[in-house]
Amino acid sequence: MRIALGVEYAGSAFCGFQSQPSRCGVQDALEEAIGQIAGHSVGVVAAGRTDAGVHAVSQVVHFDTDAMRPDAAWVRGVNTHLPPSAAVLWSCLVAGEFHARFAAAARHYTYVLLMRPERPGLFAGRVGWYHHQLDVGAMRDAAAALVGTHDFSSFRAAECQAKSPVKTLWRADVSSDGALVRFELSANAFLHHMVRNIVGALVAVGSGKMPARWAGDLLAARDRTQGAPTFAPDGLYFAGAEYDTRFGLPPTVRKVAVS
Amino acid sequence: MRIALGVEYAGSAFCGFQSQPSRCGVQDALEEAIGQIAGHSVGVVAAGRTDAGVHAVSQVVHFDTDAMRPDAAWVRGVNTHLPPSAAVLWSCLVAGEFHARFAAAARHYTYVLLMRPERPGLFAGRVGWYHHQLDVGAMRDAAAALVGTHDFSSFRAAECQAKSPVKTLWRADVSSDGALVRFELSANAFLHHMVRNIVGALVAVGSGKMPARWAGDLLAARDRTQGAPTFAPDGLYFAGAEYDTRFGLPPTVRKVAVS
Repeated sequence: MRIALGVEYAGSAFCGFQSQPSRCGVQDALEEAIGQIAGHSVGVVAAGRTDAGVHAVSQVVHFDTDAMRPDAAWVRGVNTHLPPSAAVLWSCLVAGEFHARFAAAARHYTYVLLMRPERPGLFAGRVGWYHHQLDVGAMRDAAAALVGTHDFSSFRAAECQAKSPVKTLWRADVSSDGALVRFELSANAFLHHMVRNIVGALVAVGSGKMPARWAGDLLAARDRTQGAPTFAPDGLYFAGAEYDTRFGLPPTVRKVAVS
Repeated sequence: MRIALGVEYAGSAFCGFQSQPSRCGVQDALEEAIGQIAGHSVGVVAAGRTDAGVHAVSQVVHFDTDAMRPDAAWVRGVNTHLPPSAAVLWSCLVAGEFHARFAAAARHYTYVLLMRPERPGLFAGRVGWYHHQLDVGAMRDAAAALVGTHDFSSFRAAECQAKSPVKTLWRADVSSDGALVRFELSANAFLHHMVRNIVGALVAVGSGKMPARWAGDLLAARDRTQGAPTFAPDGLYFAGAEYDTRFGLPPTVRKVAVS
């Protein structure tokens, strides 16, 4: 049978989601902890394979097992075997056709940026940083130009393995609360480094280096070399994925609480 | 001359504020970093000597130096020598009679508690945790009974070195936002473990183990052995100290942003 789990983690404690030979991936920690409860080795598949340093408030994963366990075992039991910076929030028996990655109809990311002259201390590794004031209105205008179904090659990492650079971006909001700027992006799927490259381009606009209309020009150019540098992973949070209601999952999207 | 600094830090990266032989205190990190800029060794005094694991959004410290440096050197210069989890936010030349500890007329602490069945993952070390629902209204009533000038011996750690257990608690607010409960306490000064012991007592009330009126009874008993266990340091933030306006300091109190 197939089990889906909701998981949160601090990316700074791992070398990314994906399994690594040194076993430092979130996937490694999950497979080891779930294996302890299942009594056999398991393979875990995630909605979003986050990079090193990227956090998750609502990662969705699935695995297959023959072990009959109460829901609490897949949550509290697995948590006793996970490192402190990762926790399972819920578990749900799902149909065999469910797939955390391929069944995800939408994905949500939030980027939290600290905008002040002094580097982060308390939130080191938890927020991105820009040392000057940013024009939030200009960034909001620039972000709006990216919404829709487009070829996002200008925001795609060279090593991206997606079959197509065409994705549908439903939402690209920019807001601020004091020194914290929040970028909220929703799409059917994201290319490798797409959010961090979009944030880099928006910061180029917000700082006045580029006019707001440049974001649309950059999108149209379909050329990564014309873009801004990739922004740091520190402020990036995977905020959840959405699935057809027929799978009967609990809520799979959560608000990022660093605000 | 005397310089005051505003400092933030993640307590989980240090063994408390106070200097230790192993040099793991926030004080050690500050004295080493400031010493690099001053060119001579310095001694640092803090408004609140936080315990191991306790964070600060607005710690105030002072030190004496003969080195003439621009403000930026005491902020950005010192930050280049501090570990990532601590940062100086401002610097201010102050009169020789200023004293970060003895001149502080008020101190503010915030305790952030995650109230849910699953232990923290993303915010491990950054929030306290209670696994059942808590009655926030009952905790608020209980907290109100503690406001005023009282002998707080029932909330005082055995190793506390304060001359008197009598302190004036001006504010003891309890609020909640989803799964996060926030305790905000302000006093002229706090005894050792006083906030964590108050939070422990309020959680005993919120969980229904004790009635709301018990907090006042406990206060009147002036007996630590009748109290609840000391709550974990993980969710505790030093939110600032207040000084006479004649010292000309920038704002010395900041809101805790994990909400």
